Amino acid sequence: MTADKGEFKRDQNYLADRITADGRDGWPVEPGRYRLVIARACPWANRASIVRRLLGLEDVLSMGICGPTHDQRSWTFDLDPGGRDPVLGIERLQEAFFKRDPQYPRGITVPAIVDVPTGQVVTNDFKQMTLDLSLEWRAYHREGAPDLYPEPLRDEIDDVADKVFRDVNNGVYKAGFAGSQEAYEEAYNALFARLDWLSERLANQRYLVGDTITEADVRLFTTLVRFDAVYHGHFKCNREKLTEMPVLWAYTRDLFQTPGFGDTIDFDQVKEHYYVVHRSINPTGVIPAGPDLSGWLTPHGREELGGRPFGDGTPPGPPIEGEQVPSLAA
Amino acid sequence: MTADKGEFKRDQNYLADRITADGRDGWPVEPGRYRLVIARACPWANRASIVRRLLGLEDVLSMGICGPTHDQRSWTFDLDPGGRDPVLGIERLQEAFFKRDPQYPRGITVPAIVDVPTGQVVTNDFKQMTLDLSLEWRAYHREGAPDLYPEPLRDEIDDVADKVFRDVNNGVYKAGFAGSQEAYEEAYNALFARLDWLSERLANQRYLVGDTITEADVRLFTTLVRFDAVYHGHFKCNREKLTEMPVLWAYTRDLFQTPGFGDTIDFDQVKEHYYVVHRSINPTGVIPAGPDLSGWLTPHGREELGGRPFGDGTPPGPPIEGEQVPSLAA
Repeated sequence: MTADKGEFKRDQNYLADRITADGRDGWPVEPGRYRLVIARACPWANRASIVRRLLGLEDVLSMGICGPTHDQRSWTFDLDPGGRDPVLGIERLQEAFFKRDPQYPRGITVPAIVDVPTGQVVTNDFKQMTLDLSLEWRAYHREGAPDLYPEPLRDEIDDVADKVFRDVNNGVYKAGFAGSQEAYEEAYNALFARLDWLSERLANQRYLVGDTITEADVRLFTTLVRFDAVYHGHFKCNREKLTEMPVLWAYTRDLFQTPGFGDTIDFDQVKEHYYVVHRSINPTGVIPAGPDLSGWLTPHGREELGGRPFGDGTPPGPPIEGEQVPSLAA
Repeated sequence: MTADKGEFKRDQNYLADRITADGRDGWPVEPGRYRLVIARACPWANRASIVRRLLGLEDVLSMGICGPTHDQRSWTFDLDPGGRDPVLGIERLQEAFFKRDPQYPRGITVPAIVDVPTGQVVTNDFKQMTLDLSLEWRAYHREGAPDLYPEPLRDEIDDVADKVFRDVNNGVYKAGFAGSQEAYEEAYNALFARLDWLSERLANQRYLVGDTITEADVRLFTTLVRFDAVYHGHFKCNREKLTEMPVLWAYTRDLFQTPGFGDTIDFDQVKEHYYVVHRSINPTGVIPAGPDLSGWLTPHGREELGGRPFGDGTPPGPPIEGEQVPSLAA
């Protein structure tokens, strides 16, 4: 939505119950009880799908996948046979929000975690969600799962993630949905100033914080991977393409080629979502055929900077049946 | 306008009287009699402003410059003091079309050449216009003016220019104004196939036809120079940016740095025109702040391919007073 001076304001009120090891909010961690609902298109949901993969939670936390486009009543399970999520039995994610609160007044958003027995959404608070997957679900992590939120680095991760949220993750939306030239330019300037800052930070270190992949990298990745496909043109974030920012392009490629990252990305669904759903800024609904994606699998050279992607752990195996995305490999 | 299957159709009916040395259409070449009306934004008008510079016709054919934006009644002289062209004394180019034909039924377009004494548009046929500047105004060319349409190469120039018109000059519009996904993809594919063909052709020869700058180069340049600023994003011509197509990027930079080309380009006016006027595809009217333009003045290395830019002639001098564009030099 757009406020006074035409700037985009994200409603940041979410269902904020937490699923915890001790179940203090009434939602104890329990294998098989919950279902994570995402859409491949959505960068906020993408955080959760990546972290779930990296931590190897596929067997204890199932995943439902909404299609890329939606109408006023929001996300649907149109990719599933019969248009229904096979576990929740619903056609629209809205139904699970209304089970929780028949008067639910805010946006129907992904990612959401649904309590399967009652069909209610427990939380759609994407910021806390991935941290809880790291901290509260630890008993169910795969062997070799990385520590994405290591205790000594949390302040630094939070600090970087805050800057990245404001100027980059949400910044691209502020540029794209600006209702005035002034609001747009403010967002554009903050975005590229932050990308310059990130380029400098990442020029000589492989990951954002410490020498391993952390939550901070997950959060930056989900925006950068969509940059040229949607934000550059559709949201007018066009000082350069990602492919023209050498450090960030290599950094994002490095992550893309790391198991758990690129194997969650479906570029066609990403483009379809933004260009079809946002008729207010793309009235024709025509989806660009570009950009050329062949660069994503090219060597990035970032190994030379050292770093230990998974720390003392190991990479996850391949995606499970039903969760594969189209491959970019020829 | 958009036809059956959603494809963009350009109305190609123009006022087609010709200004000739022998005056056979009633409009003889005559120094000081006519005024060329352009807009810096418009690629079709840009052909005429470049050719006029290259041939040194500034003193015999004056030039009026419309502002970048316009309303339903089309181009205006809003950049001029009082909002009136100082020579024609009119506020809207439309007035000169109506002087010629009070019922003038088609688009009010630039470039147009106006007969100053009567205030009537003589021609807005942009394809013939530049050829006539080369052929019919020869007696008034500057010393050292190049031959942009050399007799032995005309068939080849016409053939290349036809392909470039269909797939590139007009092709970007077909992509941008496509009313259906199918029409868009057809235009996109033809555009990039032609750009690949052009890249191959220009890999080992400096100019499109022969070893000097010709009309064919002028016509290709006016689209390529606008590619990243508008066509890449606004018209969804986004397989790559021009800056990511090495041969074409160096070719366009080479011409940009040649007197008579880059000194006719005003990137701000170009962007303002497309993003403000085309509300049907950019409802907010927000103008992108990018792309970064700093690359335009970097070395292109094309001298190594040989070629004689002006043949036996010489480059034109600097633009005359009142016709300068903002410089990209720091």
